[in-house]
Amino acid sequence: MSKKIQIFDTTLRDGTQGEKVSFSAEDKIRIAKRLDEFGIQYIEGGWPGSNPKDMAFFERAKRHSFQQAKIVAFGSTCRTGNKPEEDSNLRALIEAETPAVSIFGKSWLLHVTHALKISPEKNLELISGSIRYLKEHGKEVIYDAEHFFDGYKDNPEYAIKTLLAAQTAGADVLVLCDTNGGTLTHEVTKVVHEVMSAVDAPIGIHSHNDSELAVANALAAVDAGAVHVQGTINGYGERCGNANLCSVIPNLQLKMGYSCVSDEHLKQLSTLSKFVSELGNLTPDNKQPYVGKSAFAHKGGVHVSAVIKNEQTYEHIKPELVGNSRRVLVSDLSGKSNVSYKSEELGFEFDKSSAESGKIVQELKKLENEGYQFEAAEASFELLVKQITKNAPDFFKLEGFRVIMEQNSKGESRSEATIKVRVNDQIELSAAEGNGPVNALDAALRRALCEFYPEISSMKLQDYKVRVLNEKDGTGAKVRVLIDSAKDGTSWGTVGVSENIIDASWKALSEGIIYFLMNQNSKPRKRENLVETGQKNTTEVPS
Amino acid sequence: MSKKIQIFDTTLRDGTQGEKVSFSAEDKIRIAKRLDEFGIQYIEGGWPGSNPKDMAFFERAKRHSFQQAKIVAFGSTCRTGNKPEEDSNLRALIEAETPAVSIFGKSWLLHVTHALKISPEKNLELISGSIRYLKEHGKEVIYDAEHFFDGYKDNPEYAIKTLLAAQTAGADVLVLCDTNGGTLTHEVTKVVHEVMSAVDAPIGIHSHNDSELAVANALAAVDAGAVHVQGTINGYGERCGNANLCSVIPNLQLKMGYSCVSDEHLKQLSTLSKFVSELGNLTPDNKQPYVGKSAFAHKGGVHVSAVIKNEQTYEHIKPELVGNSRRVLVSDLSGKSNVSYKSEELGFEFDKSSAESGKIVQELKKLENEGYQFEAAEASFELLVKQITKNAPDFFKLEGFRVIMEQNSKGESRSEATIKVRVNDQIELSAAEGNGPVNALDAALRRALCEFYPEISSMKLQDYKVRVLNEKDGTGAKVRVLIDSAKDGTSWGTVGVSENIIDASWKALSEGIIYFLMNQNSKPRKRENLVETGQKNTTEVPS
Repeated sequence: MSKKIQIFDTTLRDGTQGEKVSFSAEDKIRIAKRLDEFGIQYIEGGWPGSNPKDMAFFERAKRHSFQQAKIVAFGSTCRTGNKPEEDSNLRALIEAETPAVSIFGKSWLLHVTHALKISPEKNLELISGSIRYLKEHGKEVIYDAEHFFDGYKDNPEYAIKTLLAAQTAGADVLVLCDTNGGTLTHEVTKVVHEVMSAVDAPIGIHSHNDSELAVANALAAVDAGAVHVQGTINGYGERCGNANLCSVIPNLQLKMGYSCVSDEHLKQLSTLSKFVSELGNLTPDNKQPYVGKSAFAHKGGVHVSAVIKNEQTYEHIKPELVGNSRRVLVSDLSGKSNVSYKSEELGFEFDKSSAESGKIVQELKKLENEGYQFEAAEASFELLVKQITKNAPDFFKLEGFRVIMEQNSKGESRSEATIKVRVNDQIELSAAEGNGPVNALDAALRRALCEFYPEISSMKLQDYKVRVLNEKDGTGAKVRVLIDSAKDGTSWGTVGVSENIIDASWKALSEGIIYFLMNQNSKPRKRENLVETGQKNTTEVPS
Repeated sequence: MSKKIQIFDTTLRDGTQGEKVSFSAEDKIRIAKRLDEFGIQYIEGGWPGSNPKDMAFFERAKRHSFQQAKIVAFGSTCRTGNKPEEDSNLRALIEAETPAVSIFGKSWLLHVTHALKISPEKNLELISGSIRYLKEHGKEVIYDAEHFFDGYKDNPEYAIKTLLAAQTAGADVLVLCDTNGGTLTHEVTKVVHEVMSAVDAPIGIHSHNDSELAVANALAAVDAGAVHVQGTINGYGERCGNANLCSVIPNLQLKMGYSCVSDEHLKQLSTLSKFVSELGNLTPDNKQPYVGKSAFAHKGGVHVSAVIKNEQTYEHIKPELVGNSRRVLVSDLSGKSNVSYKSEELGFEFDKSSAESGKIVQELKKLENEGYQFEAAEASFELLVKQITKNAPDFFKLEGFRVIMEQNSKGESRSEATIKVRVNDQIELSAAEGNGPVNALDAALRRALCEFYPEISSMKLQDYKVRVLNEKDGTGAKVRVLIDSAKDGTSWGTVGVSENIIDASWKALSEGIIYFLMNQNSKPRKRENLVETGQKNTTEVPS
């Protein structure tokens, strides 16, 4: 049995400190569920005491069940002068109702004397008092020793004292943080070895990438005895980011003989990486190790022919171990791809022996070539499969729409959409205004349909993302629109691609509604009934 | 005196093996000159035997003088069966007329027997024969031991034999290559130590980033005795890239006490990084260590106030040592920001004592709050300043536009825009179709204006980016549109923000044209003249 390493994901907390990284509370729930399914043991969701969005996440998280992961609330030791039970930050941690909490304290005298302006002894009391209070409330406590390496270099005795204070108070793991990211790998090795001989509690590592050494430092710490690694998906995080779990995990598991997640889950790593970047609307880094699109891309005939004869020659691991795949020129691959490859890649299962499977793959490849991407648009993918296998009911048929957007000389603008849909034999024409053309189209579609499917008013469109795919062609460039729809905390993603942003939005909008109707097993109401019950045109249309 | 480490840059050779990385021969000359000025000692320019573009680079390089750098030509040992003097690859290396050459040979028996299909002894002869031949022609020879670490793990005796063959033949440095990028840092340390005790020639390191350890591995090799480091600017390179010199150099020089370039030159590191990404038309990575835009960006009030008091608290080095600068969130700065800060940040100068300066800052902050961003939209920023200081000429006035987008039941769509503009006293109404609403609007505006300003046909719209700013509100979310316009290789950026994507696009589109007209000192032509000269409505409108 290989030694188990605890993986602690902080994408939702430290990750969002990265510039341009932002997730809605609903995004956070979706990511947390994926991390749980992937086998991550600890998921830090945010700092409940610091902002309402994070508090909203913990509120929602209470209503979700997770397979194995522990949701973690983050915060600081209690404020100078406060008693733990009076401290609003510690109270917020308790109220988050998570099984585990992580709290950070000061290890570096520079911070103790300059930032907190308290005595070294008082700082030790803050650490132990806060931890003791949290332990009394039944929490598993992860102690983050902020600036540990800088503090240790400055004054090793005091740095160790802070760890011992945490250990004595009952901390379950002591995490050595390289907060500024300036520590070199050989220093991490040395310091972790020395710490190991001074404390008994399990040791963790939290490294930052300011010296481009975050992954190396995490591995060095484990090599020296750490059993808990903190990091983020794709290395998102403050300044230059955190240790990238998409590299840490396969390095530990495939090369160093440790165990982090199951080998089966590890095959979802590439999909997980893309899922998180899509939800964050962040461009995936093609040259990202292990999971990037170029990570196993071979140029040049010599490499390609060598690698086909023996993959060891130019590949450090088998790409499929992390759910990635070898790329040579697309044309070279054409003969080999198959349904099972595609279904694995998308984390989706359908009958591999069915007659339609070849057709599905063909259609998928065509769509991906056009710029479609299904990692964060599972609903569109499911619809596609059902359409090909003739399992998709027809809820409505678009007869046509028109969107008009006008602006006058004062800069005032007006957007209006008209839409004609057919439901069975009945035609409905409706119009709506909106604060933009897509918003107007959404409103008109809902108005047209909610007569037949009043349940539509219970779902909402909660997220709208646009990405330009080939920016070289100016306004003629293709755009990909990703839409998240939701009902009662469950959400689903759909995608549309077109040179025309309204058209791309239409595809994603309409599929979001179709998917909803399909999952509700909706049947259209007859217009007569509606008139009789007086419901016609009374439904409130969300804009 | 600190120990000098040779820096060998392979941006122009291994770097261009990266997906999407491509430089023209002229780009390569410009980069080589910058690397030379920066103090890089070896600049690998390409593989003269492999393609005409690389040969063109070496032809041009002969006509340039470099301050201190040695240009290096790259190639393989001679082909099996060839005598060195008959080998076209070695001949191309000689003809490149560079002071130094790098040649790679096989260290791993797997490659010797599977790829070359020759005996282990024959491989040693290829290595020594090729090097001897190049030394006879007066070259400094850098020997790249391909797959050295994999070969060494497989058969250490044989791997060392290949190095000894190169050493005996006169190689000036033996570079241990982690070609597949799969080697872990502690393995590099161990292998380099063992190699150091078996050979006398200086040792170099060439690492790849497939395990996200390229920088760590380069540092570990130096720590173990290597004196020569190969890498690329920004870590460009095949698959996941090469060791990133923008991190290797400051780590070695600022943290490990080695010397690579002068401290003065090191301050050019951030500019060098951006220069290379610009020439390669590659988006700079904001979170790149040391040189990235976010590398010293601080969020959150605690960090900001601490860092202002004592930069050590949250910065691992002083950013100015690598030519970078600290950034804080605009909102956190509110009390402190002032014209001089803003003008510096945007690289823009205007009279700081003018009465309008307060107004400019106020307007800027308001716009940034609304989601505007001027870093990549200098033209919009300049227009803003000129509008406030009343220096912006009026080229045209929008009387109104209407955009219509229709889709029928077959999914066929049509986009049409009509626009009315006033130029002095003349009104022009025009219409155009496009493959999307923004494209149609662009075409209609150009058609309306090019009667008055025919020079508009010489500029083009070359890039169009959309970002959704607050994704919470679904299709009602704000979008930011960034447009790059260009004429003859000069380009300028403009920005528009709105809840309505057409409106945001309109702002960016129209400002792109106004900026162009302003820089051309354009004056409107009178319609009568146009009619007389027969030019009315004949100008070709780009779509």
